[in-house]
Amino acid sequence: MRILLIGASGLLGRAVHDVLGVRHEVITASRSNGDLAIDITDPASIAAVYDEVGQVDAVACAAGSVPFKPLAELTREDYLAGVTDKVLGQIELVRQGAEHVTGSFTLISGVLAREPIRTGAVASLVNGALESFVMAAAVELPQRINAVSPTVFTEALDAYGDFFPGFEPVPVTAAARAYVKSIEGAATGQVYRLG
Amino acid sequence: MRILLIGASGLLGRAVHDVLGVRHEVITASRSNGDLAIDITDPASIAAVYDEVGQVDAVACAAGSVPFKPLAELTREDYLAGVTDKVLGQIELVRQGAEHVTGSFTLISGVLAREPIRTGAVASLVNGALESFVMAAAVELPQRINAVSPTVFTEALDAYGDFFPGFEPVPVTAAARAYVKSIEGAATGQVYRLG
Repeated sequence: MRILLIGASGLLGRAVHDVLGVRHEVITASRSNGDLAIDITDPASIAAVYDEVGQVDAVACAAGSVPFKPLAELTREDYLAGVTDKVLGQIELVRQGAEHVTGSFTLISGVLAREPIRTGAVASLVNGALESFVMAAAVELPQRINAVSPTVFTEALDAYGDFFPGFEPVPVTAAARAYVKSIEGAATGQVYRLG
Repeated sequence: MRILLIGASGLLGRAVHDVLGVRHEVITASRSNGDLAIDITDPASIAAVYDEVGQVDAVACAAGSVPFKPLAELTREDYLAGVTDKVLGQIELVRQGAEHVTGSFTLISGVLAREPIRTGAVASLVNGALESFVMAAAVELPQRINAVSPTVFTEALDAYGDFFPGFEPVPVTAAARAYVKSIEGAATGQVYRLG
């Protein structure tokens, strides 16, 4: 397959690239590195990437950032920033992908949709939004659509472990395999929960 | 208790008013009718209402609208409109309520967080966002916070039944009772799913 991978330069994106690259042609896009530059918060940037790549069998997204702050410090702008980036950014990949993608979309969510941590309210909101969207979009979208929803990665424990006390981590390769399941499998409307 | 009820003039809001009014002082606010006028999409309007009412024991929200359209017709602005109204509107009630509310917040979600219907992608996204937010906010918020998440109301079947084929409806009084459970009970971070 010909697969457009967004967010290819992060920890998860690199693992997804490794596992997809064995059997597929992977075109990478990310904010800084990658074959193409993309800013998913900017619809024009997404349009430019689709114009450049033309038709693909699948879009895999491993991009999307949200602010982490104590609840009492969160501004209206923080909520909007998280929604604009990880939610509307990924939805715009789906919206604009209507004419460019023949097979499937795989979006990135996360464990905070189903478990709370301190400073994680925006992340929870954003991931909950994505998981319900994927379920709903699947009944109307001609392409398949799924989400990968991992807990904290083993490889990221040094950096983020203190925010996830007692959470059992998963290796990033486990999340990457879920992208393979989504892309090569037959299911739609699924949320692949890891941890 | 002294309770601020937002969205008091709708089908659900009236039922919540009926059941809370028996034992509590209910101050009503809504877009058009009610003791006070409020537009939850406008932070200044929310601030004005809180200034007017001062301290309350609980805020109950039955307001929030989202666009319903076939997925292929949904614009970026439609997604943003749903988020700005039902999600950011209710979150702004919580954010600004920090200094005005001593007891609890009860927000309105809905069945589309967990079940898809055609034209319901924005509603699913919005409700999924709210339910994960409530779970997350509960671990950091001094006040309690819960959501009521009903399926289609029996009383609304004539208007909306065709969008919910085979969905078992619930009477609006059942959803109103969930507000009582949230406000008079002890739980926080809960989503009261009806149907």
